[in-house]
Formats: sequence, structure tokens, C-alpha cells
Amino acid sequence: MQVIRSIPQMLAVQYTPAAQVGFVPTMGYLHDGHLSLVDAARRDCDVVVVSIFVNPAQFGPSEDLQSYPRDMDRDLSLLQKHHVDYAFLPDAEDMYPEGYATWVEVSGLSDLLCGASRPNHFKGVCTVVLKLINIVHPHCMYMGEKDFQQYFILRKMAEDLNLNLRVLSCPIIREEDGLAKSSRNSYLDSQQRQQASCLYQALRNSRQMVKAGECDAAKIIAAAEAILISNNAKVDYIQIVNSTNLMPVDSIDENSRMLIAAWIGKPRLIDNMLLKA
Amino acid sequence: MQVIRSIPQMLAVQYTPAAQVGFVPTMGYLHDGHLSLVDAARRDCDVVVVSIFVNPAQFGPSEDLQSYPRDMDRDLSLLQKHHVDYAFLPDAEDMYPEGYATWVEVSGLSDLLCGASRPNHFKGVCTVVLKLINIVHPHCMYMGEKDFQQYFILRKMAEDLNLNLRVLSCPIIREEDGLAKSSRNSYLDSQQRQQASCLYQALRNSRQMVKAGECDAAKIIAAAEAILISNNAKVDYIQIVNSTNLMPVDSIDENSRMLIAAWIGKPRLIDNMLLKA
Repeated sequence: MQVIRSIPQMLAVQYTPAAQVGFVPTMGYLHDGHLSLVDAARRDCDVVVVSIFVNPAQFGPSEDLQSYPRDMDRDLSLLQKHHVDYAFLPDAEDMYPEGYATWVEVSGLSDLLCGASRPNHFKGVCTVVLKLINIVHPHCMYMGEKDFQQYFILRKMAEDLNLNLRVLSCPIIREEDGLAKSSRNSYLDSQQRQQASCLYQALRNSRQMVKAGECDAAKIIAAAEAILISNNAKVDYIQIVNSTNLMPVDSIDENSRMLIAAWIGKPRLIDNMLLKA
Repeated sequence: MQVIRSIPQMLAVQYTPAAQVGFVPTMGYLHDGHLSLVDAARRDCDVVVVSIFVNPAQFGPSEDLQSYPRDMDRDLSLLQKHHVDYAFLPDAEDMYPEGYATWVEVSGLSDLLCGASRPNHFKGVCTVVLKLINIVHPHCMYMGEKDFQQYFILRKMAEDLNLNLRVLSCPIIREEDGLAKSSRNSYLDSQQRQQASCLYQALRNSRQMVKAGECDAAKIIAAAEAILISNNAKVDYIQIVNSTNLMPVDSIDENSRMLIAAWIGKPRLIDNMLLKA
């Protein structure tokens, strides 16, 4: 595995002609969710590139940029074990040099759901991912389904900007109690960690309600909210949307997906699930 | 010359390996300014691609999208004469399909000068040019210096987004009386056409003042304004900026460039010149 820190050096990499390049952009502190993306890229592609970059542009001023967990040695060792070809680790000063001014935004979709409580978050995500795509030149990019809105927005960006890139999603990887794997789970103390599976419980309960014949989105959301509140979670949003356009639905069908964001103490967690699968 | 109207067909073009691809994005109704860019691309590059696309996204609601001059047959004949390899003529419906949502902006620079009286103009320009770049995959892109702010912003966009693209400018091509060649000159009636060279006269006069030792930007601007007003031009802006950052300057040096925008009747014209050259 080649570790590359310089943008010009990454730009200069000459892949074998006709090689399919798979790319997994990450913020590091890798868990099994990330590694499932790496394995998918390894399975599908000839060359696998993983970036690790904690992107300042996607954090709000009161968010956790400084405390975001980092463990580069462990990350690199994991990437090597998973047969990655290139680990790309750019510096923030090189990604956003003084006078940096160019921003990419997917309008509308970026204001919904997580975008409502995290203004400019998706603008920061789109911008850094477009930059990384322009540096890495992948044919396929792999995203975790946990960040469903992020996956949706980046797929839309790639389509709108004619990037000629397949944006693929992989299923959420969960802990034994159902908590979706996330680097931010490391913030949870032991009591919060126990409460944190309530997002999954609320999603499972919603799916069971649908299986039992409930079609009314409002009723399902109310039941999910009760589960979150009884676990001392502070709800940011619980919404049921159409997976194909992220628009809220009143009545459940095959495309209906529940998305949840909630604070467990200070940490803010997200999760989602198709309700009829 | 191959004429391509479909985006997938342009994306599928396989250039010879190692061929340098030069690109000239235009809105058509070609004049000698455009053709000088084509000739520069032909001189420097192995493959020359010219796009013709009147980009709705860069026109304001009260601007001249509908009346913008078009003559595709003449344009294609000129491009063929100038040895272009590919003429790319996408449809607006393919460039901006229903639900299109992704926009690129160079913040700050897009609000100055022409951006002040044309809000969203440069956002439309950046977005379409990024899309065209992603479809055409050029190594070099050629821009006319008449649209100096546009050239500056697109070069900044390419740099910020790591496009690995050289953005080059070519000198303004002028009519005999000094009027900068522009597709919009076709809007001028015969009286307006005579008045229209006042932008050039104001620039020349400014350069002469500098040559004679004047260094005070305010005095030079006042003299330029007097020339415009005496020709019945309505000034949008007259500014002297540093060519390397587009910031206004008080005192003239080698980088000082005067930029003018003014209405001659209804048509709005722009022009610019380095003052110490």
C-alpha cells in the first residue's frame, strides 16, 4: 500500500490503462462500516484508493472538529490488511489553501433533514468530495448507507455535474445491540452507549408496525419518538421519506425509509432503515 | 470535424492516448475573438474541442437569453475552417434536466464588478463550465481576456477544485475603432455602434494618463467616466483593480487593470485594459 500525503503526488499516480478505480472517502477512525466499503471496492475494482481527511468545511462552528477521533496508525494498518492500493492523506492547508473560495452545493436536498440542523454541512461535504474525486479520478465511489442523505446528495452531485462516476452505497454495519457503527460512537460513555441503541429499536419497531399493517407515517413516527424519549434521547428529527427523492411521505410504500437523528447526551447520532423490505 | 449533440456521445469520445486536448467554451455567434481562442488551442494542442451552448443559468430573469444572437450554420462553418476536431452542441434539457440542483460558486469574486449588477451570473458560468469540463476532459481551456473577471473566476475554480487543467487567456480582439469584439455588439444600432468605442477610448485615455505619470486611480477613473458620459454611455462600473486578485487599487502599478461596464442604450458592453504595459 502506498501512502500519499501530497495532492500533486496523488494527481500524478498513473493507474494501469483500463483499470477500474474504486474510491472510499473517509474521515478516518475506521470501523467495520468503512471496511465494508473498502472490501466492496476491492471486490469490484482493480485499484482501491481510500482517503482519510477530517474535513473542516463540513463542521459547524460549534461542532466537534477539534475533538473528532483520530488514530492514523491504526487506520493505516487496517487499510493495509484490507489490501488497499493507495491511502491518500491530504493536509487541510493543501486542500483549503489561503484564499480558497470555491463551493459546490446541491440545492434543496442540502437543507432537509441533517441539513436543517447543520447549515453548510453538505456544502462542505460536496466540495471536499468533488475535490477528492478530481484528485483521485475514480470510476466508482463507495458510501455507507448510514449517511443516507449524504449518499443521496453526492450521487445527485455526480449526476448533475456529469462526473461519469458510479456512486454506490453499502448496507449499514451494526453493533450486536443494533447501534449503527460510527466513529462518533467513541464519544458515548457507558450509560449513553446503552441508551444509544434506541435509534435502532425505534427503526425496528417502525418496521414491525409496517409489517403488522400500519401505513400511517404519523403514527409510526409517534411510536418511534416515544421510544427515543423513553431512552432519554433528544430528537433532532424523525422522518419517513421516499428513498428516491428524500421527500416526506404520509403513507408507507416500498420506497419508504425512516431517518432519525438524535442526541444521546452531547453526541448526535443518525440512523435509518427501509420500512418495507 | 465531428459535430456532437449528445452528452453521453461526447463523454464516450476516446482521445488518442497522451493527446493534449484544448477546449474553447462559447455561446456561439462566433467572432474573431472566439476564433483567436480556437487558433491558440489549435497551435498548442493535439485535439481541439469547441462547445456552443447558450447557457440559461448565467442569464438573469430580465436579461437577453431569448434574444441572444444565434447562427449555428455559420458557426459550424467557421469552426470547420479553423480545423476544430469536435464541435459540442448540447441541449439545455440535457445540461439541466428536470430536478437539476447542483451549483458551483467562487465566493467573493463572484459578487464584484459584473457580479454586482448580475447576481448569480458567475454561479451559472462556473456551473456550466465545470459540467463542460467534466464532459470534454480537456487539458487546456482558452478564455478571452475581454471577460477578464470570468477568466479570473474560472481559473480560480479550476485551481480550487484541483481540476488539473490549464486555464489560459488570449488578448482582446478589437474592431478598427477599438470596440472589443463581442456577440452582443450585434444589438447596437448604427448610432450606438459609433458611441460604443467610447469604452476603448476611456481605456486608452487612462493608459495615456498613466504613461504621462498619473498614479492616482480616482483621477484616472474620473477622466474615464467623463469620456463615457460625453458619449451617452450609462456607466455600470469603472474600476481599477489589481489583476492578480481583482481588488480595487488606489495607486497604479504594473498589475493595475481598468475594467469598464456600460450600457449603450439597452446593450451592456464590457472592456478592460492593463494600464502600464
